[in-house]
Amino acid sequence: MDETLSLILFSGTDDKLTAAAVLAVGAAAMGRPVNVFLQYWALDAFRADRIRKDHGVAAEAGVEGATLVARAAEKGQHWADTLSQAKDIGEVGIHACALSMDLFEIVKDDLDPLVDDVEGVAAFMAEATGAIVFI
Amino acid sequence: MDETLSLILFSGTDDKLTAAAVLAVGAAAMGRPVNVFLQYWALDAFRADRIRKDHGVAAEAGVEGATLVARAAEKGQHWADTLSQAKDIGEVGIHACALSMDLFEIVKDDLDPLVDDVEGVAAFMAEATGAIVFI
Amino acid sequence: MDETLSLILFSGTDDKLTAAAVLAVGAAAMGRPVNVFLQYWALDAFRADRIRKDHGVAAEAGVEGATLVARAAEKGQHWADTLSQAKDIGEVGIHACALSMDLFEIVKDDLDPLVDDVEGVAAFMAEATGAIVFI
Repeated sequence: MDETLSLILFSGTDDKLTAAAVLAVGAAAMGRPVNVFLQYWALDAFRADRIRKDHGVAAEAGVEGATLVARAAEKGQHWADTLSQAKDIGEVGIHACALSMDLFEIVKDDLDPLVDDVEGVAAFMAEATGAIVFI
Repeated sequence: MDETLSLILFSGTDDKLTAAAVLAVGAAAMGRPVNVFLQYWALDAFRADRIRKDHGVAAEAGVEGATLVARAAEKGQHWADTLSQAKDIGEVGIHACALSMDLFEIVKDDLDPLVDDVEGVAAFMAEATGAIVFI
Repeated sequence: MDETLSLILFSGTDDKLTAAAVLAVGAAAMGRPVNVFLQYWALDAFRADRIRKDHGVAAEAGVEGATLVARAAEKGQHWADTLSQAKDIGEVGIHACALSMDLFEIVKDDLDPLVDDVEGVAAFMAEATGAIVFI
């Protein structure tokens, strides 16, 4: 089996982005290549002027869950830092989905430098030779 | 690695269904076999009398996000047409989950003709020999 | 392709947990090893004192959808029983994510006996050699 891990990030809430970042760093630590593809609300969360802001949590979390996540965020590492760490230790690429860029009418310079480039779904799928995880 | 892409569609909102359709057509264009399995709210969205209706977007999108997606939908191609295109260019099967059919108390004729057949999860899993994506 | 199926359960609503349990039992019936990793709201749903309680459904279901799922739950098998069945017929491990345990400040004894142990994401990823499904 091809060890490449492809992560399609669709949701832009802090709980899901944290879960995704932890998977990315875990896979990178095991020596697996990781390709991240940012779509829709996840892409929105990677805008340079928003990446460190509060992105909320999944609706099902409720007020109690949201409070827990917010408290953990104060003590722990931000998901953007976890992704940065993943890039430091392994082969991790972060790509913005071209269609979603069009949707938000934004360009590469509007995104945080964590994002390497903009690519189409065909280019992403060509490298998605192992497990594909949609978050 | 087996190139088959299995897409389990669970959510029935237009943003997720569009993302799924784009993945399906991208994979089909690369020559990968694609199997789509419709469960719960995604199955509901494939009813013949509802498939072209507004299915909303993920709760996290908010009013601003919903407006963006609605505006894009007016200009762009509907996800049902993208899936139809995927079937034209590649080996793409769309199957309704038998358990979810029971849940909604519907039969094959209640579904859009895009859906090929009704099958159980065991039959679906038997063909899910490559990446499995839950959306 | 490695046949191992890795299921990362993130959501804790009854519709998604039922879908996940059905996938697990389907894969186990095919002889595939299954590894379940419980994070965030799914982990919360596996607490010993809550596992049989009503965990709601995805926000998009609406009142009509919630009613349908509740009615089906009365007639059908609870997802916890489906997972128990999966463990009976195949090689199925259920692991609690150590980071999420910290988030909720709970210990192994707070969880339903269905959960085998607590493990870190690195240990989980080491066994995730086939398809990885995030639910």
